[in-house]
Amino acid sequence: MQTQGLEFRLEDDRAGLSFDALKQSLVSHLFYLRGKFPQNAELHDYYIALVHTVRDRLLQRWAASPAAHSTKHVAYFSSKFLTAPQLAASLINLGITEPMQQVAESLGFDLPLLLQQHELMIGSQELGQLATCHLDSLATLGIPSIAYGIRYEFDRYREYCPSEPVGIVNQWLRHDGSPWEISHPEWSASVKFSGSTESYLDEQGQFRVRWHPATIVHGIPYDAPISGYRSSTVNTLRLWSASRIETVAAEPPCIRQAQNTSYPIVTLEHLITVLSLEVPSLSNRLTQTPSSDQLLSHPSYPQRPPLEAQCLYLQQQYFFISCSLQDAIRMHLEQYGSVRSLPDRLALQLNEVHHAIAIPELMRLLMDDHGLDWDTAWGITQNTFTHTHQAVLSEELERFPVKLFASLLPRHLDIIYEINQRFLSDVRSRHPNDDGRVQRMSLIDESDERFIRLSHLAYVGSRMVSSIAGLHTKLLKQESLRDFFSFFPERFKGRSNRVIPDRFMAIHNPELAQLITSKIGDRWLSHLDELKALELLAQEPQFCGQWQSLKRSLKQSFARKIFEQQNIQINPDSLFDVHTRRISERHRQHLSLLYIITLYNRLKANPDLDLQPRTVIFSDSSPSACYMTQLIVKLTRAVAGG
Amino acid sequence: MQTQGLEFRLEDDRAGLSFDALKQSLVSHLFYLRGKFPQNAELHDYYIALVHTVRDRLLQRWAASPAAHSTKHVAYFSSKFLTAPQLAASLINLGITEPMQQVAESLGFDLPLLLQQHELMIGSQELGQLATCHLDSLATLGIPSIAYGIRYEFDRYREYCPSEPVGIVNQWLRHDGSPWEISHPEWSASVKFSGSTESYLDEQGQFRVRWHPATIVHGIPYDAPISGYRSSTVNTLRLWSASRIETVAAEPPCIRQAQNTSYPIVTLEHLITVLSLEVPSLSNRLTQTPSSDQLLSHPSYPQRPPLEAQCLYLQQQYFFISCSLQDAIRMHLEQYGSVRSLPDRLALQLNEVHHAIAIPELMRLLMDDHGLDWDTAWGITQNTFTHTHQAVLSEELERFPVKLFASLLPRHLDIIYEINQRFLSDVRSRHPNDDGRVQRMSLIDESDERFIRLSHLAYVGSRMVSSIAGLHTKLLKQESLRDFFSFFPERFKGRSNRVIPDRFMAIHNPELAQLITSKIGDRWLSHLDELKALELLAQEPQFCGQWQSLKRSLKQSFARKIFEQQNIQINPDSLFDVHTRRISERHRQHLSLLYIITLYNRLKANPDLDLQPRTVIFSDSSPSACYMTQLIVKLTRAVAGG
Repeated sequence: MQTQGLEFRLEDDRAGLSFDALKQSLVSHLFYLRGKFPQNAELHDYYIALVHTVRDRLLQRWAASPAAHSTKHVAYFSSKFLTAPQLAASLINLGITEPMQQVAESLGFDLPLLLQQHELMIGSQELGQLATCHLDSLATLGIPSIAYGIRYEFDRYREYCPSEPVGIVNQWLRHDGSPWEISHPEWSASVKFSGSTESYLDEQGQFRVRWHPATIVHGIPYDAPISGYRSSTVNTLRLWSASRIETVAAEPPCIRQAQNTSYPIVTLEHLITVLSLEVPSLSNRLTQTPSSDQLLSHPSYPQRPPLEAQCLYLQQQYFFISCSLQDAIRMHLEQYGSVRSLPDRLALQLNEVHHAIAIPELMRLLMDDHGLDWDTAWGITQNTFTHTHQAVLSEELERFPVKLFASLLPRHLDIIYEINQRFLSDVRSRHPNDDGRVQRMSLIDESDERFIRLSHLAYVGSRMVSSIAGLHTKLLKQESLRDFFSFFPERFKGRSNRVIPDRFMAIHNPELAQLITSKIGDRWLSHLDELKALELLAQEPQFCGQWQSLKRSLKQSFARKIFEQQNIQINPDSLFDVHTRRISERHRQHLSLLYIITLYNRLKANPDLDLQPRTVIFSDSSPSACYMTQLIVKLTRAVAGG
Repeated sequence: MQTQGLEFRLEDDRAGLSFDALKQSLVSHLFYLRGKFPQNAELHDYYIALVHTVRDRLLQRWAASPAAHSTKHVAYFSSKFLTAPQLAASLINLGITEPMQQVAESLGFDLPLLLQQHELMIGSQELGQLATCHLDSLATLGIPSIAYGIRYEFDRYREYCPSEPVGIVNQWLRHDGSPWEISHPEWSASVKFSGSTESYLDEQGQFRVRWHPATIVHGIPYDAPISGYRSSTVNTLRLWSASRIETVAAEPPCIRQAQNTSYPIVTLEHLITVLSLEVPSLSNRLTQTPSSDQLLSHPSYPQRPPLEAQCLYLQQQYFFISCSLQDAIRMHLEQYGSVRSLPDRLALQLNEVHHAIAIPELMRLLMDDHGLDWDTAWGITQNTFTHTHQAVLSEELERFPVKLFASLLPRHLDIIYEINQRFLSDVRSRHPNDDGRVQRMSLIDESDERFIRLSHLAYVGSRMVSSIAGLHTKLLKQESLRDFFSFFPERFKGRSNRVIPDRFMAIHNPELAQLITSKIGDRWLSHLDELKALELLAQEPQFCGQWQSLKRSLKQSFARKIFEQQNIQINPDSLFDVHTRRISERHRQHLSLLYIITLYNRLKANPDLDLQPRTVIFSDSSPSACYMTQLIVKLTRAVAGG
């Protein structure tokens, strides 16, 4: 902790964890940040004051220079983060849920209601949830890390749900930003797009390339603290916001004009808008009313996405990847002085196949900006990246047209060609006279129009490629992957994604967590296997009684909420069969509906059937307009009404 | 000061004015708001911390409930505010410039550089500067007031000057908001547009009108504190930000369809963008290359602006006027319980002719939302508004097409017709058989297409109409005004706009202010006539010497800056003839150029002429693209180079 420059005390009430310190801090923040007294403060005011109260307490640890750690750092890339419920999790991690509840009672605000606020929702899909679990784990394990992403101005939720049921979050970025965030304009990065490249010999006679971009987009990072369970490590979530677009006026001298510059890309003038709205991920871009033929051949995944969507997506992903790599290098240089030690100090973890663009980008930065030669830069690149494929995508979704690269990222196209040429010459020397294999493994798909295969780029440019179970299925299915697996067997790892059911329960079912803790202590909150101790208790009638009565009371309160919101009465003693994933064919709610119809038919055939009463609940706050989803919703309504 | 609910102490270091308290506060804010220590803080970090340090000190006074005052409140409307340099002015007003300078020296940051940051620049024209002077005066005189305006997302400066010379301001709203601001989503207001009106009889059998809008725009207020010189009154600048546009889906039952709904207005979908960008005021909308005929007939003012600009302008002005009136009524009701006492407690001061839309809007709110009958509402309206015309506009700029109102504000058109009918019947009864007069004074201009004359609306609906000198010229020129003056002689007041040269000097020429204060004390800072004491000192050689050496050193430093920025060497012993207004024909820089040419010719004719060496400096950071401005710039360059 770097405090020598701090001549003045930091007030105790901003760091203390007692009831008094927390209450003092909350009242101060209400007044000085919101101009309010407890008696005239609104929920929104309490939310801001509460986040600042918690943030103050994380700051001492957060501001501790990463220099204090001598271990390797992790930089984690994801285009989605679902950090909510960040406030509830931070209270648990700091161990101040109890005293804060007392503060709430003494000031008269509703803490549970505040904790339900949606906060940062940068993509609410599985990937965002998973990223949050990883960040929590890294902080809990004390591994210094930084998570990089995009600071969308609107979250998905706002897009679909203009009625703003809660009212804080949907506006948070547009209006006040998030109270978790601290902006750092002093660390802004500039990202080049389009234009042309020019080769030249430097003073040492070395071959070099200069990129003359047509446009430069400036990114500003916003940091939020990520805490771990009872951990002194507070890590950083750093999201990039596009601040300004600069059109490079003077046409530079072009030696090699990029191919196909007449190719119609989405104009960069709209990029700020694009960056501020989350581009629906490509796999959601299902054509609105596909032919039945398409539905049959690709039941779960869309056809090739429209070119415009690919262009937007590539711009957006490249923007945050480039900002983040520049940032990681900046911090590394500040601490260690040379990019050559990058692989010893930093692990760059990519989480989507499209992040493979980071590989030529790091090469470009090392060669063009930091003066390294190809081999040194390639050694560093290959040893710094690890890649996880979170989902199994069809090949169509993993490849981008060469002409798109030529028009948008001409320098990267050069570098990818060079990587490919060197890689294929290795393949040829290990497998002479096997042109089929060379074609299958090439980074360029020459089948019709030419494409860059981003997954192949990831395999070739990373130290390790891991995946959830899907990869193994894929290994069996795709020939090219079998080729890569046999070529780099050491790189491919199957790996389970860790989730955090322990704190998930503490946040969302505090009553049950409390019951368990009262019996076996709270170590299970960070060591889930301690829950085994419950096996013995399963025999104890008193404990089972407590468990059952708690369960019934929660079911009753759930039933009450449904009645209040939907005016539907359900039986709390029935079995609740709950589906809360987004309604879509890939989540297969229709199978559950078929099961309901089956049960109904059985009951109709035999009215005396001994069937457990059952309430089936489907929930999706904003079903997509996609054709199949609409059909499933229609079927659900029909079955419910029948 | 409402403190009874505040059980906990507010820390002394957040309110104290001593060196120690200020330093402690600054260091705390650096750490807790920016995550920085003094040794790694950037200018931007210091700016945020410094503003919060000052804001904390204003907050105790600011949060004091207006209920504590029993006097009449002022609500001041302006579409432009130029509050900068707010930080420097606040330091002077609080009397902490000295200790803050010591804090800066002890921590090692550059206070004068920070004070030059541009801060809030909501329109940098005369009107914005004037509004700031009025706000300062109201606070200094202890008159409780609230200033209403629009929270543009980008200021004019950014628009013209993308190179961002200083780097804080141009981004402030887009990225982090201003540290001066506190948002209040709990006081949001909704503003209706377009659609149709429907009349009905209420339960008491009274005639009423309901407006079914096609669109509703939601506004959120952002407050900033406005301090006065050594005053305990801290007033509020409340700017409205458009948060969300709601399209009213269901077509309401229409009894009377608004006329001309097919009229092509600018779609409201774009309104948020419009509201976030300052619409250049209509008078700047000079056609790019006017014919010489146009230039001759209207040398200083433009022709009628394009309809689209009028539409945008009306939407924007109506948006903030409606939000503000709703807000003023909300606060009045909280305190006094009834709208009937409005004229006793509130003066609504309108500053632009377009603000006359506030008159039918207040009528609408009082009748449609608060259930008053016409006569009561009209009595309140007429007694609450005062109007100042800041500039002399051609009649073309003060009138809006009836069809624009019909399409955008159908309810207001109804009300304006009704006001006009009642007013003209008064005119007819006082001047029977004078149809010419009736036509001249009508709120509706029937000359070709029909127009609403907003200035006439202002004369009819306000308690007092004042103006800078221009009004008198206008009285002589325009027949209709002579008619109004003779009809309501008591309403028309000529009034000088007060400026604050005293604090202006303290902020921008602290050395000179200090010299004066050292001789005659600091009372002149609030009582400018005290400067008379300098007359005696003009005889004192020592004082004159100090004055002259100070003047020379400032001229030298100015010359140094010009050399640094422009590489032009000027003679600090020459007479400086400085033109800093925007270059335009109405500011008549060309007359000065003609004078330079004359001097040059004289000198050429007589090389021995005893001419005071003279440096003429023209400055405009962003000359407009308007034809005449370009010509003047060209002439200036030619004369300078000749």
